[in-house]
Amino acid sequence: MHAYRSHTCADLRRDHVGQEVRLAGWVHRIRDHGGVLFVDLRDHYGITQVLCDPDSPVFAEVERIRSEWCVRIDGVVKARDESLVNPRLPTGEIEVYIRDVEVLGAAEELPLIVFGDQEYPEETRLRYRYLDLRREAMQRNMTLRSDVVQSLRKRMWDQDFREYQTPIITASSPEGARDFLVPSRLHPGKFYALPQAPQQFKQLIMVSGFDRYFQIAPCFRDEDPRADRSPTDFYQLDMEMSFVEQQDIFDTIQPVIQGVFEEFGGGRKVDADWPQISYADAALWYGTDKPDLRNPIRMQVVSDHFRGSGFAIFAKLLEQDGTEIRAIPAPGGGSRKFCDRMNAFAQKEGLPGMGYIFWRDKDGEIEAAGPLAKNIGPERTEAIRQQLDLGVGDAAFFLGGKPASFERVAARARVTIGDELGLTDTDRFAFAWIVDFPMYEADEESGDIDFSHNPFSMPQGGIAALDGDPLQVKGYQYDLACNGYELVSGAIRNHRLDLMFKAFELAGYGEEEVRRRFGGMVGAFRFGAPPHGGCAAGIDRIVMLLADEENIREVIMFPMNQRAEDLMMAAPSEPAPEQLMELRLRVMPEE
Amino acid sequence: MHAYRSHTCADLRRDHVGQEVRLAGWVHRIRDHGGVLFVDLRDHYGITQVLCDPDSPVFAEVERIRSEWCVRIDGVVKARDESLVNPRLPTGEIEVYIRDVEVLGAAEELPLIVFGDQEYPEETRLRYRYLDLRREAMQRNMTLRSDVVQSLRKRMWDQDFREYQTPIITASSPEGARDFLVPSRLHPGKFYALPQAPQQFKQLIMVSGFDRYFQIAPCFRDEDPRADRSPTDFYQLDMEMSFVEQQDIFDTIQPVIQGVFEEFGGGRKVDADWPQISYADAALWYGTDKPDLRNPIRMQVVSDHFRGSGFAIFAKLLEQDGTEIRAIPAPGGGSRKFCDRMNAFAQKEGLPGMGYIFWRDKDGEIEAAGPLAKNIGPERTEAIRQQLDLGVGDAAFFLGGKPASFERVAARARVTIGDELGLTDTDRFAFAWIVDFPMYEADEESGDIDFSHNPFSMPQGGIAALDGDPLQVKGYQYDLACNGYELVSGAIRNHRLDLMFKAFELAGYGEEEVRRRFGGMVGAFRFGAPPHGGCAAGIDRIVMLLADEENIREVIMFPMNQRAEDLMMAAPSEPAPEQLMELRLRVMPEE
Repeated sequence: MHAYRSHTCADLRRDHVGQEVRLAGWVHRIRDHGGVLFVDLRDHYGITQVLCDPDSPVFAEVERIRSEWCVRIDGVVKARDESLVNPRLPTGEIEVYIRDVEVLGAAEELPLIVFGDQEYPEETRLRYRYLDLRREAMQRNMTLRSDVVQSLRKRMWDQDFREYQTPIITASSPEGARDFLVPSRLHPGKFYALPQAPQQFKQLIMVSGFDRYFQIAPCFRDEDPRADRSPTDFYQLDMEMSFVEQQDIFDTIQPVIQGVFEEFGGGRKVDADWPQISYADAALWYGTDKPDLRNPIRMQVVSDHFRGSGFAIFAKLLEQDGTEIRAIPAPGGGSRKFCDRMNAFAQKEGLPGMGYIFWRDKDGEIEAAGPLAKNIGPERTEAIRQQLDLGVGDAAFFLGGKPASFERVAARARVTIGDELGLTDTDRFAFAWIVDFPMYEADEESGDIDFSHNPFSMPQGGIAALDGDPLQVKGYQYDLACNGYELVSGAIRNHRLDLMFKAFELAGYGEEEVRRRFGGMVGAFRFGAPPHGGCAAGIDRIVMLLADEENIREVIMFPMNQRAEDLMMAAPSEPAPEQLMELRLRVMPEE
Repeated sequence: MHAYRSHTCADLRRDHVGQEVRLAGWVHRIRDHGGVLFVDLRDHYGITQVLCDPDSPVFAEVERIRSEWCVRIDGVVKARDESLVNPRLPTGEIEVYIRDVEVLGAAEELPLIVFGDQEYPEETRLRYRYLDLRREAMQRNMTLRSDVVQSLRKRMWDQDFREYQTPIITASSPEGARDFLVPSRLHPGKFYALPQAPQQFKQLIMVSGFDRYFQIAPCFRDEDPRADRSPTDFYQLDMEMSFVEQQDIFDTIQPVIQGVFEEFGGGRKVDADWPQISYADAALWYGTDKPDLRNPIRMQVVSDHFRGSGFAIFAKLLEQDGTEIRAIPAPGGGSRKFCDRMNAFAQKEGLPGMGYIFWRDKDGEIEAAGPLAKNIGPERTEAIRQQLDLGVGDAAFFLGGKPASFERVAARARVTIGDELGLTDTDRFAFAWIVDFPMYEADEESGDIDFSHNPFSMPQGGIAALDGDPLQVKGYQYDLACNGYELVSGAIRNHRLDLMFKAFELAGYGEEEVRRRFGGMVGAFRFGAPPHGGCAAGIDRIVMLLADEENIREVIMFPMNQRAEDLMMAAPSEPAPEQLMELRLRVMPEE
């Protein structure tokens, strides 16, 4: 017999009754029922009930055993009494009578109970991650993550992509975040950087003629703490293709993402129709470029109904350039109580408030109610109702000013309205491609033009488009939004050097600087660069959505805490003086 | 029609004759045959011959095109004349008459010709890696690497392993090499380290109850330059299992490795019999713990034949403690010329020389020849011949002293003899598990005891074995040797804290130091650690063997040069002063 086990803790069935078996695992729970010890023995695969009565030659030894000890037991499989069968447990028809036991690893008193759902502070969970990970939910999340990554890989291979590994110790990459630096010992005073993404390398792979690349790629960004992201590293499904246009990327990646959501979505509905929404429309309709389309609410511009109206605040606002009034329709929200609550929500978000109208039944007629309705009168109110296609029992909320000043709050109000009114189907994954991102944005104060997203994207309209107003230039750049999160981001790349230098020039970067900062890529583009494009999908985010988790640390095996510390491994830590000496570095005292 | 291509450059066959097609790729070669331009158009998948005669509306444009320009062409598929069919090209039955052409990416004068086999200095190849990678051999190597990794993954999944990702920005790991450090911005003065291997993490994954882990894991070691290794990072197939003994690991990993060699070995013989050879026997028989078993030569101890013999050098040597005489049999090496050449080889390797005997036919009788034979006389010579099972036409070489003083040269001599005599079957992969590694070694000068390999391996014989002579303690530690390389290394781990502290104590490390340096693992072992073990296989090495390459840079997409520089990306480089300021670091001037 094998030294540790003849079966796993998930294997035994009624068929095994009478067999001598050997099991190994952890003591999940012990109960003493009238002198008989019942032990739930757990391993990665399942749980088997093993028991020991005082007649057993090893009763005294089993009595010593405590929760989370790792043990091996030998015993005989017996059928449970019909009344004691546990239908929720695959091994619930049998139990094993212990004949021999060996303690493989004892445990001290536990700082974290594995059995059950007791909650612990995150610090405790991370410090004793090896105990936390034994819990059922974490075993499930880690298994899910592994399976999702495997499935993503398989789906990429099935589409004739190959996985190529790109360097991790390399040069600074231009992703706009902060690099992690790695001092060089062989070249003291010089530093490597960890890649924020394999962006330049995957483009170089295309220039090298590989046609279809993907990688489950670690990415490194020295980020300031935030609850929903890792402060150090994260994983992307990174892909790139040559000889493609934007639609080719969409057609390639949709089956991969949709397939994974269908495979692991646990029966939740997965939309197959992925609309393409321009960045401008997304801002208008949803107030964000990562809209949650499970929420059917679309905002609309209703400025005309307020121009010169009796609602002086909006009427006056509209006299300023660049202002507008936007309505958030709220089907089913037609009660004063709800409207007042939403108004209070807006105030809590820092706005003076949200005007509203709601429609109710008055003697079989429809009546618009609320202070705003009174101010603008029945004709305008009715026109608004018709534009928004609302009726009795519905409401609409209004925000005014320059869109930039209210769009964020509008987006949050839309989400809250959808949630509170039960309009958002939470059992569903809804996707949309956000396209036509602007290439440039102007700094609000200085008016300086800079890239709004990725400087390496291909501007729409070619070099001619760069002769006009930079703020009108759109890029072949796209995001995939899912349930309010950005899941994928990508672009058709600018592979033409003349176009690239011109695009950078508009943002104030001279040719020399571009050559210096992106020398690898610029050098390569001189030698027959193919048109290419691609995207990257956030693995952690995909797994979070599938696992229905809000905290990224629930889907990472050994995450840092929010202060970028690993409490279990004691990282970061002070280096040995010799190490700093070899690197010719000195740490400066705090000021 | 698609914007760039209707087919790849490997697709077109006689069936397509008459079709209008669109192709995109690189100009591999252009020939002008009597005014007709023949272009070999190349993409990742293959080559298609396209041609343009002066009647073509785009003849002038095609005339401009040079090697490695990236172009799109439209044209009509025509059958080649029977006499012009190229059977070595899958598209060799057709050619495409160009009707339209678009330059997608022009190329400047090339620093490296893609077509053909011209050799270039490594610096040129690495600086223009994107051109180097377009060459057929590099496309093949990178494709092979990708396929090998995919196959390894599949084989691990098929054995119910899951891939789990471990942290890359973490704490120092105790693998004995130098860490790469990463300064922390949020905790100035503290540093993370890049993992030399996920050793601690994979053990923690076992303590966390995951049972079977693997990972294609990046490993980071700040190594001094050497031709056959990467100076920064490399990849391992890393695996670990719980509730296993050494043989379980062998039974699990052999089908994975053997399968990959069978799949990608290009028909070379792959041994299915993997002998287990003790470390001591490997040293004796082969002079190394990574023997090349394609070479059938086994060394033997022949001390007794020289003790008190007329060969004074050896006879005297044997009077010292710890010395021995070892023979390298050389079947077929029985000529004075060969023996003298091998003697010269040993002198070049720094030894005074290698004594030899060879056997020749003298009038139908066997005769031992060479100075050594004369010195020790026919009786001893014959006894040696019989021990080594040699005959007419064979030779034997002799080395004497303390084994440590000659084993390396003996190993090299064995390889050279095998090669020169054609004994080594180069069309074959031969594997052996090297087992029973000593846990400890004594420093030659100080006599201090230290771990000879991995301090976390389980000592054979349990805690009792640690009470005797440390130098006699063997570990459940093993390597897989293949064709003279170490391909895999692993161990059953020491999961018992009492045993671990005692094992470290023998090597002079106190409990406090162990807790401080390996806190994560030591902490975890207090809470029910399972018995576990595993191994790691070098991906780069496996691909090198399969691709028949001697230089690791031939199987890595974007390698560093031997000075740990990336010439293409200009890494490492000087950081911006703000970056150093944020990290509170200062670079010290050179002394």
